[in-house]
Amino acid sequence: MKKIISLFWVVCFTLPLSAQCVRVKIDIPNLKGYVTLKCDFHMHTVFSDGLVWPTMRIYEAYREGLDAISITDHIESARNKKDLVFISSNHSYNVALATAKTTGIILIRGGEISRSMPPGHCNAIFATDVDELYTTDYMDAFRAAKAQNTFIFWNHPGWDRQQPDTTLWWPEHTKLLEQGMLHGIEVVNDGDYFPEAHQWCLEKKLTMIGNSDAHLPVPEFVSGKHRSMTLVFARSATPEAIHEALKERRTAVYNDEFIIGEEKYLKELFENALDLKIEKADNTVRITIKNNSDLTFRLKKTNHDARLVYFRDYTIVPQGLHSISIKLEDGITGGDVNFSVENFLVQPNKGMRYTIRI
Amino acid sequence: MKKIISLFWVVCFTLPLSAQCVRVKIDIPNLKGYVTLKCDFHMHTVFSDGLVWPTMRIYEAYREGLDAISITDHIESARNKKDLVFISSNHSYNVALATAKTTGIILIRGGEISRSMPPGHCNAIFATDVDELYTTDYMDAFRAAKAQNTFIFWNHPGWDRQQPDTTLWWPEHTKLLEQGMLHGIEVVNDGDYFPEAHQWCLEKKLTMIGNSDAHLPVPEFVSGKHRSMTLVFARSATPEAIHEALKERRTAVYNDEFIIGEEKYLKELFENALDLKIEKADNTVRITIKNNSDLTFRLKKTNHDARLVYFRDYTIVPQGLHSISIKLEDGITGGDVNFSVENFLVQPNKGMRYTIRI
Amino acid sequence: MKKIISLFWVVCFTLPLSAQCVRVKIDIPNLKGYVTLKCDFHMHTVFSDGLVWPTMRIYEAYREGLDAISITDHIESARNKKDLVFISSNHSYNVALATAKTTGIILIRGGEISRSMPPGHCNAIFATDVDELYTTDYMDAFRAAKAQNTFIFWNHPGWDRQQPDTTLWWPEHTKLLEQGMLHGIEVVNDGDYFPEAHQWCLEKKLTMIGNSDAHLPVPEFVSGKHRSMTLVFARSATPEAIHEALKERRTAVYNDEFIIGEEKYLKELFENALDLKIEKADNTVRITIKNNSDLTFRLKKTNHDARLVYFRDYTIVPQGLHSISIKLEDGITGGDVNFSVENFLVQPNKGMRYTIRI
Amino acid sequence: MKKIISLFWVVCFTLPLSAQCVRVKIDIPNLKGYVTLKCDFHMHTVFSDGLVWPTMRIYEAYREGLDAISITDHIESARNKKDLVFISSNHSYNVALATAKTTGIILIRGGEISRSMPPGHCNAIFATDVDELYTTDYMDAFRAAKAQNTFIFWNHPGWDRQQPDTTLWWPEHTKLLEQGMLHGIEVVNDGDYFPEAHQWCLEKKLTMIGNSDAHLPVPEFVSGKHRSMTLVFARSATPEAIHEALKERRTAVYNDEFIIGEEKYLKELFENALDLKIEKADNTVRITIKNNSDLTFRLKKTNHDARLVYFRDYTIVPQGLHSISIKLEDGITGGDVNFSVENFLVQPNKGMRYTIRI
Repeated sequence: MKKIISLFWVVCFTLPLSAQCVRVKIDIPNLKGYVTLKCDFHMHTVFSDGLVWPTMRIYEAYREGLDAISITDHIESARNKKDLVFISSNHSYNVALATAKTTGIILIRGGEISRSMPPGHCNAIFATDVDELYTTDYMDAFRAAKAQNTFIFWNHPGWDRQQPDTTLWWPEHTKLLEQGMLHGIEVVNDGDYFPEAHQWCLEKKLTMIGNSDAHLPVPEFVSGKHRSMTLVFARSATPEAIHEALKERRTAVYNDEFIIGEEKYLKELFENALDLKIEKADNTVRITIKNNSDLTFRLKKTNHDARLVYFRDYTIVPQGLHSISIKLEDGITGGDVNFSVENFLVQPNKGMRYTIRI
Repeated sequence: MKKIISLFWVVCFTLPLSAQCVRVKIDIPNLKGYVTLKCDFHMHTVFSDGLVWPTMRIYEAYREGLDAISITDHIESARNKKDLVFISSNHSYNVALATAKTTGIILIRGGEISRSMPPGHCNAIFATDVDELYTTDYMDAFRAAKAQNTFIFWNHPGWDRQQPDTTLWWPEHTKLLEQGMLHGIEVVNDGDYFPEAHQWCLEKKLTMIGNSDAHLPVPEFVSGKHRSMTLVFARSATPEAIHEALKERRTAVYNDEFIIGEEKYLKELFENALDLKIEKADNTVRITIKNNSDLTFRLKKTNHDARLVYFRDYTIVPQGLHSISIKLEDGITGGDVNFSVENFLVQPNKGMRYTIRI
Repeated sequence: MKKIISLFWVVCFTLPLSAQCVRVKIDIPNLKGYVTLKCDFHMHTVFSDGLVWPTMRIYEAYREGLDAISITDHIESARNKKDLVFISSNHSYNVALATAKTTGIILIRGGEISRSMPPGHCNAIFATDVDELYTTDYMDAFRAAKAQNTFIFWNHPGWDRQQPDTTLWWPEHTKLLEQGMLHGIEVVNDGDYFPEAHQWCLEKKLTMIGNSDAHLPVPEFVSGKHRSMTLVFARSATPEAIHEALKERRTAVYNDEFIIGEEKYLKELFENALDLKIEKADNTVRITIKNNSDLTFRLKKTNHDARLVYFRDYTIVPQGLHSISIKLEDGITGGDVNFSVENFLVQPNKGMRYTIRI
Repeated sequence: MKKIISLFWVVCFTLPLSAQCVRVKIDIPNLKGYVTLKCDFHMHTVFSDGLVWPTMRIYEAYREGLDAISITDHIESARNKKDLVFISSNHSYNVALATAKTTGIILIRGGEISRSMPPGHCNAIFATDVDELYTTDYMDAFRAAKAQNTFIFWNHPGWDRQQPDTTLWWPEHTKLLEQGMLHGIEVVNDGDYFPEAHQWCLEKKLTMIGNSDAHLPVPEFVSGKHRSMTLVFARSATPEAIHEALKERRTAVYNDEFIIGEEKYLKELFENALDLKIEKADNTVRITIKNNSDLTFRLKKTNHDARLVYFRDYTIVPQGLHSISIKLEDGITGGDVNFSVENFLVQPNKGMRYTIRI
């Protein structure tokens, strides 16, 4: 369901002989004044416990149509890797940078502060020197991250190894938040959605993040599948604009068929993805819908005037063309077609409500 | 490797509830003055020995990105179908027409004159009344087809049930040809390529045709696979323009990764599909190639100046971006990069030769 | 995730030339005393509003590894089909029977009594003459169905065209039930699950059914996907045994990753699918699980002794091998590992609870 | 077309959390007295110019159903890798060994002697210390390899970077051969088949080898696709038995649909894969064929008695069931059904001839 394109002429100069030079384009609409960038801010390489070389992360991102990534190797454990002589926590970034440049992938320097709970694992991205975040006391690491003006988010807050029964917010997180050392949370990590984290982001004005946390190779793109990612609504496709957008919480999370985020952004995505045409004839209204995106929309009827007779559930497929019929009974001439978009989550596990007035 | 698009807003009005409203777009370049139409002129329905209803053939064509089809049920055997009351040899066309119109698929009325060898099975398309082709003597059927100004082509000339050991041209075919009752041959039928038929088309100025001959449902589109089809280089996307192009032999056959046809068309397809950029630096030339099509190109080096050192085999993937390096030895400053495009057949089983001068 | 096998040597004698002679085997365990048969009791052909010939339904069933099907063309509307001369409501069965026999697929004669709500659409299978069910008054149709000792079930009870806002049980259904003319309900129709119907089956002792209701061709088998179907726990693979099992409510519904049915059957499926090995060492217990089926199991922790520390969510993949670690804290030596199998629905939208004592 | 199984209970103990614990089984028959082992003796990791960590090679092999692999990092260039501190040419083996043991994959220590042509690149496997093969003079490396009793084969003999126009045998190879330092050749490397190498193996009694030469991650198994590999007909599934079989040239190469090897092995593979049943009735013979393997067989009729009328081309699909009809004309009662198996190469680009006497 995704278009294959090749934006960057130069990529093949750096790819190994047998690598596929084909980039997929994921169609997700832009918002007014912003481009929608597909980003993954959490992944690993052989320089911590990942199984691929840093340049592979660039090829994968290029192939899958991403705009920006951050390689975030564990800062602490990397130094204990027995099979590899330690070089620096900046090393995976340094190794990948040239390939990122030739392919046009925006590479953001980062690292994962990997501590026991509290506060658990947090990524600091847009760092200037990750080695400075290697400290004994975790607070020192966060202070160093703040001093570098990084964007800091809490990873997989519901990870069962660290939160065995429930997804808890600890006093330590309050402290980090109050001291300006926590800016976002992974609402989705590698396909897992954390509704509690969704709620915290809404309440505490934190940025919603979704990432792959890839350790293994990311499988080659297969039609209709994509890694968990963050959609960043940025003023332009630059590292600075991504940083600004993250701070201003202009993101949504894209996970399987789900989009998770603030209602104002999801509503605009919905409206920009679809062309609607409404036609009336006698006691029937026909709504023709053209989906110009690779998103799926799962509609479910909500409370409505019973004299408007329409679908109970309706799925708009990627790039699909649909025609919905609505019967007007008892002589009414119009009304509100109410439904929720069940896979556009604007509250924890709650779909976005929407009305088409006919 | 193919783009999914939806050209026709109206299709869903006619599709059954659960049908997929998604059309694939196959990227094959146009030629100068002509649009490249993807056509399949040979398929069956329940009105002969096929297993689907005629409208299904339209949905399949829409889904797979075809522009035109002809349903060509067997004219003779249909009348002997014991499980179905015979209606008319025009019936499958009549049943499918309304759906064809709403989806924008060009539907061409046709039928298969299905006789023993010689002359075997032949399709007559652009008929006005297929029933008139139901005759005792096969020559009467061809005369009726000619009287209707149909385009007639010989199907699967190497079908082992009718030509057990070798693909033979019979005196009867000469007679049909001389009397203006044979205009083309299936060089490909359902994935099978007949090099003898390829040769006959070149020698006897017959139109090269490739078709699916589908009896079962055509599988839903799977990335990178497509049915055997005829590419028609037509002045416009109309039945009349297709008819004119077929008569003027402006076709090529698309089968798996192969394109089969006259060199002048294949050369233009090759050149229109690819953007080339040639850069020299010292004793190296770099050719950057961007493939803007869904076609694959399999290059194989041919005779050349040994001081030009380049690939032996090279595959240009669909929508791919490639960079080829050529070394200039012994102080030469340029020369001819000679190769054949092994999957662009301009003679039976022979690839098209091409030279890039650097 | 499914094994490809070919049980029936004879199938290729009847398949059209180009048909795939490959049968998939879906691994779902048998229950004690019963074989688990994969059945689809609801589909259409060109003899009502389907788009394929009846024999195609047999090929599809063979290919996908089903054991039994019923072709259930609409009894009333078939007579009004303008493009086909009406033969008999038994005709699709008659046409498909020879192919069913050579492939070993059990073909059950049936038809769909297709009325407005109430009572909506109902299938009557194991009929002896479907034409007798063509009546003016729908109750006469049900009486004729009962007289033939058919098994009758209500189709897609939540179909929005007939139940626009809510899935209602009508007095007419009570009447049918009381008169022995309603034995089951489709809890799943073509991927849609109806929790209300699930509840009614539990309360009113009705048989749970799941079907494809295919009108279009069923897509060729793709790894990991299957049509909605009914699992019938029968004494043997015969029509009579299926009939007996349906009457005794020995079924479950298989839909995507979900199994829906009575707890006693689902529990036995779960236990027969998995080999468990429990090993203790110090304060850790390791449970090794080998999944010998093509089923997925999505486990979610439920209330438990907090000193047993284990996963919050865990997915057992088809044919997968897993090792689960459980920590014993505060000196305990064992306890109950409690979880629900979220995709094994034993109540409407509720997973089956299970305990492994360690 | 391949069965998914899980042979080794222990693999999940060592896999990273998100790794798939599912092993595919490739059905290829054993030969009398020998098990058919699927092997890949050429691949790279981050310890030379590959992009994955050594353990990933084990997971890939496990997933794809291989029995044995050798990681063969470039011996010379690895020492010049600027982003990694050099440890030892044995290191990738040492890192992967524990995972190999838990998964049951046989890991063979090896390295690639990577020199300019002549003699080009050669792998030495079953080494005891790869570091000893790091020498200035390439002959010293081969002598060290011989001293360790390794099995040595020439890699990608038609690699265009080293053999720009033709695949040549150099005097240096003769010398290596005469001195017992060359035992096999890659007839296939990463999908590319070298017919010259095929010829040399037949003439010079060298072992035919096929390998992936993977630098990137090997894509997850997709139905019907597999990496290029060597089939080793070994007395048992042990390193010693593989070594013995390689020395005795009991191998074949499996590449796409092709099997390449000596006729005696290919004939036995063919016969062991297929169950044949021959039935006569009047003037027709029916041959029923059940393919119990994942191999495809592409038959093409060869010279034959014209009174035996049968297929021109026939494809036996993996795990497929087929029925072939042969007509006996002019009163003959039997004869030889002659054909070649076009994708079983027993000479360069020549299929294996076979006769079924009926």
